[in-house]
Amino acid sequence: MSNHGEPRDKHETRRIVVIGGSAAGPKAASRARRLDESADILILQKAPELSMASCGYPYYVGGVFNDRRMLLCTPAGVVRDPGFFLAAKGIRAKPGTEVTDIDRARKVVVARSLDTGAIEEHPYDKLILATGARPKMPPVKGIDLKGISTLQSMQDADYLRKVRDERKISKAIIVGGGLIGIEACEALHLAGFQITVVEVLPQILTFLDPQLAALAENHVRSKGANVITGNGIAEFLGEDGVLRGVKLRNGTELECELAVIATGVTPNSELARKAGLKVGETGGVLVDEQMKTSDEDIYAAGDCVECVNRITGKRVHAPFGDLANLQGRVAGHNAVAGGGASFPGTIQTGICKIFDFTAGSTGVHETAARAAGFDDAEVVIHASTDKPGFMQGKPLITRLVVSRSTRRVLGAQCVGQGEVSKQLAIWAMAIQGKMTVDDMLCADLPYAPPFSLAIDHSIATAHVMQNKLDGRMQGISASDLKRRLDAGERPFILDARGPDEYEEMRLGIGERLIPLGALRKRLGELPADKNQEIICFCKISLRGYEAARALSGHGWTNVKVLEGGILAWPYPREK
Amino acid sequence: MSNHGEPRDKHETRRIVVIGGSAAGPKAASRARRLDESADILILQKAPELSMASCGYPYYVGGVFNDRRMLLCTPAGVVRDPGFFLAAKGIRAKPGTEVTDIDRARKVVVARSLDTGAIEEHPYDKLILATGARPKMPPVKGIDLKGISTLQSMQDADYLRKVRDERKISKAIIVGGGLIGIEACEALHLAGFQITVVEVLPQILTFLDPQLAALAENHVRSKGANVITGNGIAEFLGEDGVLRGVKLRNGTELECELAVIATGVTPNSELARKAGLKVGETGGVLVDEQMKTSDEDIYAAGDCVECVNRITGKRVHAPFGDLANLQGRVAGHNAVAGGGASFPGTIQTGICKIFDFTAGSTGVHETAARAAGFDDAEVVIHASTDKPGFMQGKPLITRLVVSRSTRRVLGAQCVGQGEVSKQLAIWAMAIQGKMTVDDMLCADLPYAPPFSLAIDHSIATAHVMQNKLDGRMQGISASDLKRRLDAGERPFILDARGPDEYEEMRLGIGERLIPLGALRKRLGELPADKNQEIICFCKISLRGYEAARALSGHGWTNVKVLEGGILAWPYPREK
Repeated sequence: MSNHGEPRDKHETRRIVVIGGSAAGPKAASRARRLDESADILILQKAPELSMASCGYPYYVGGVFNDRRMLLCTPAGVVRDPGFFLAAKGIRAKPGTEVTDIDRARKVVVARSLDTGAIEEHPYDKLILATGARPKMPPVKGIDLKGISTLQSMQDADYLRKVRDERKISKAIIVGGGLIGIEACEALHLAGFQITVVEVLPQILTFLDPQLAALAENHVRSKGANVITGNGIAEFLGEDGVLRGVKLRNGTELECELAVIATGVTPNSELARKAGLKVGETGGVLVDEQMKTSDEDIYAAGDCVECVNRITGKRVHAPFGDLANLQGRVAGHNAVAGGGASFPGTIQTGICKIFDFTAGSTGVHETAARAAGFDDAEVVIHASTDKPGFMQGKPLITRLVVSRSTRRVLGAQCVGQGEVSKQLAIWAMAIQGKMTVDDMLCADLPYAPPFSLAIDHSIATAHVMQNKLDGRMQGISASDLKRRLDAGERPFILDARGPDEYEEMRLGIGERLIPLGALRKRLGELPADKNQEIICFCKISLRGYEAARALSGHGWTNVKVLEGGILAWPYPREK
Repeated sequence: MSNHGEPRDKHETRRIVVIGGSAAGPKAASRARRLDESADILILQKAPELSMASCGYPYYVGGVFNDRRMLLCTPAGVVRDPGFFLAAKGIRAKPGTEVTDIDRARKVVVARSLDTGAIEEHPYDKLILATGARPKMPPVKGIDLKGISTLQSMQDADYLRKVRDERKISKAIIVGGGLIGIEACEALHLAGFQITVVEVLPQILTFLDPQLAALAENHVRSKGANVITGNGIAEFLGEDGVLRGVKLRNGTELECELAVIATGVTPNSELARKAGLKVGETGGVLVDEQMKTSDEDIYAAGDCVECVNRITGKRVHAPFGDLANLQGRVAGHNAVAGGGASFPGTIQTGICKIFDFTAGSTGVHETAARAAGFDDAEVVIHASTDKPGFMQGKPLITRLVVSRSTRRVLGAQCVGQGEVSKQLAIWAMAIQGKMTVDDMLCADLPYAPPFSLAIDHSIATAHVMQNKLDGRMQGISASDLKRRLDAGERPFILDARGPDEYEEMRLGIGERLIPLGALRKRLGELPADKNQEIICFCKISLRGYEAARALSGHGWTNVKVLEGGILAWPYPREK
């Protein structure tokens, strides 16, 4: 596939045109070059810059680093401009060039210089589409006011960084509580602005279930940012064309001088559609595992495509920077080699830093699992620290989803101040390795006190799931218990912690304190009716589980464990 | 299996005796209790304390934390003493009690109180051995001098912590450069002592290959500690029974007032052997997957057993704290349920903090792989940061071992200042999921700039391995190149970095600087003989690889890449 000889004759040189120069495009071009030193490779990029580390924008805006060049540099500190691409990779790159048409019959792309307006035609043997995605903008009045931005382009990052540096404003609204919205919230909060996140859905971070999302929301609030859920923007309010506030759908008006729109992205698939390429239901360009479109000579990669969810088999739009790079590598390989590389799909692993807290997800929720035919999805929530207390372990709360029949791991969500990223990586590997809960029970992971508990949080989560699947533990989630309490139910609730802990922090939901160490002597305080429901908990519900096992052993038949204990309880506490 | 009714009659109560109260023992006892509320469970422990977090000793000695109780406490701060075990778990625990015999015919253990000397007999229905391991002591003169310690028991930790706090000494020797030795080195170095690590083998940390071990050794030295390899202790030198120095095998004498012996451990299997239980070749008690010994009614778990390496199928002694807990859980389960739980073996995952550097390994080396029949083991070394530069990414160097024919991942070692623990967890999961290099090429892992590169280090390592397996890259390791240079060979070596980088840091092994960006114009400076060997590198050898691909494309036939580049070069540099 690669050319080990002298450069071919002119007419033999493979011409590869790449449309898009952010992540997938340059990766595809670079991979193509490494496989074919003699190919003629051209990147056409609409934006003025190339290979921007767009996932880094929030950290530049927030002042985590100050050198704008770092968003554009190689690790060795060289800006990835056309000169770099030509010299280091033998790739021609033309930023500021918008492709307006793909003439598939003639195998030519038509482009226009945004600078001069000149129209160019570029013939291709193989074409790679990496046109990315663009922000969805809410169709409300005032959306064009000055002071409204997205956080999607280098220009957006420059604008927001300038606003941050000038520090002339005091109040900002983030529209949308997804990944980008929460990252923007952190960035602008660090700038000293008063932030309100407005999310139309009932929760932020919809890749999390509501309970874990509430834990994340609590953390955002604890930093002093405001969060409004279940309410959308009705109108942006302005004076003289400048943003002065927003009006919410419920009529509330909030002052602000800046609004960042982060309500998701739409694949830029118009060019593909116009050229007659197939576009999927999600709006992304349809590709096969080789990243080939419906045209044999055209590949596509990155945020403009849709890909397969490896668990459900459904086609999804998964605009993640890592997938864009991986897909670009596959597209570039196949554009040269005609095959041999494949992208197997996504399990939609995502992660988000929220100040000193992290939230992420991999695989599917039980709802998605059930919709995809895994109608026996079982869920458990487990909380612990990531490391021992003497090594300053920090909390982790994991919500694990498995199939009851096959016991296969289907999904995991994790939040907390601990090392969420490692936990998600472990579960992502378990899912991709098609592993079961049982495979995780005795997993051999790196253990030393600076890095994990003796039984890693992930393994302990599998242990709890095993206990649940095997009928040794009946669990109840905080959200289910809260719903029942709100409906007026008053089950017998047992707090198995010690008196000091109870004085320091307590739920105050009618629970009775019987420390685990006293339980066997105080069984008389439990309901006389052995069929009455008892719900046990402690800080993380390990002692809660031990209490439940003891009560079951003494004849109570309906004993439950509040999963994840106080650590996973996102609702207000008495103390 | 569990008892949901009233306590059974006396003669029906299951009697479980556990010998050993550190990690595996209490875990087994606790698991047994959770499965059987009515069992009579007794822990007999020789040491005066129970459930010690022994892996935490180095951090207590080093002053990472100061509250000794934290080594003995539950996460809620309760010391795990006999009162705790009885109250919270209904488990009787007798520390200070040494078991001297197991009478298998009568199903009785004979024990002696170390306090009173009284002999006790404890009948059992099921017995669990968790007798641990003890330090190997070098059989040399002076080993009994005052000032010589191990770091294996609470008493050792107390002694070394006292030495640290008193700060009366100035020089300490660590005998053995394994995990515990290096952890002891860090602990005592933090105390302000001058440390010398003496290792009889040619390298420290033998779970690493020599090149990665040299990188770790460099780091130890960079902190000011001394390391002597390939030299053992001939004699401990003393005055009036007190340690004053050591004499090495090569005759060198070193002054010291403290020596910590960390030359490995031996399973405490004498009791089992005496009782006629089968003991394996490694000296560990022989158990099956259920942790059952050669006696139907006796289980064993933890550092006293040998277990199966899941890759090679060989029996190994793997004294790791995490495995002890996992095995204890299995043994406790089966002691009650008669089966149903199994421990599938180990892939010998280990990790070690070395100041702000980490080193670890999972799976097998290529030598072990070849010995086990994987005679087509292929190796690659890859270096990069763990996160982007703008997020203060830190270096990682990974050495990956796979089978060329099946492309299955067999092992990985990782060192560096970056997040080694997460990398090892990923590879450990890949191995346990029986995944191939190809499964890793498009792995969907959690990506955001605070947590990883867009293409995670592990995935990039798989990419490099793919390139090697598919014949697109010929690699050479730093150790192989160094050997050839030392033998007088002078291959053509190409540094593909920029002039500024070259000025700042360079190998000085006769390399020629031709920046990648100038390479295609300066091909005339390359050897005229297109079959001459050329070795390319850069800081991490990504540009080195690109240079190699370009040269191959221009007709050079024997182009290699120095794997891992300068980051993975452990030998002295010119600059």
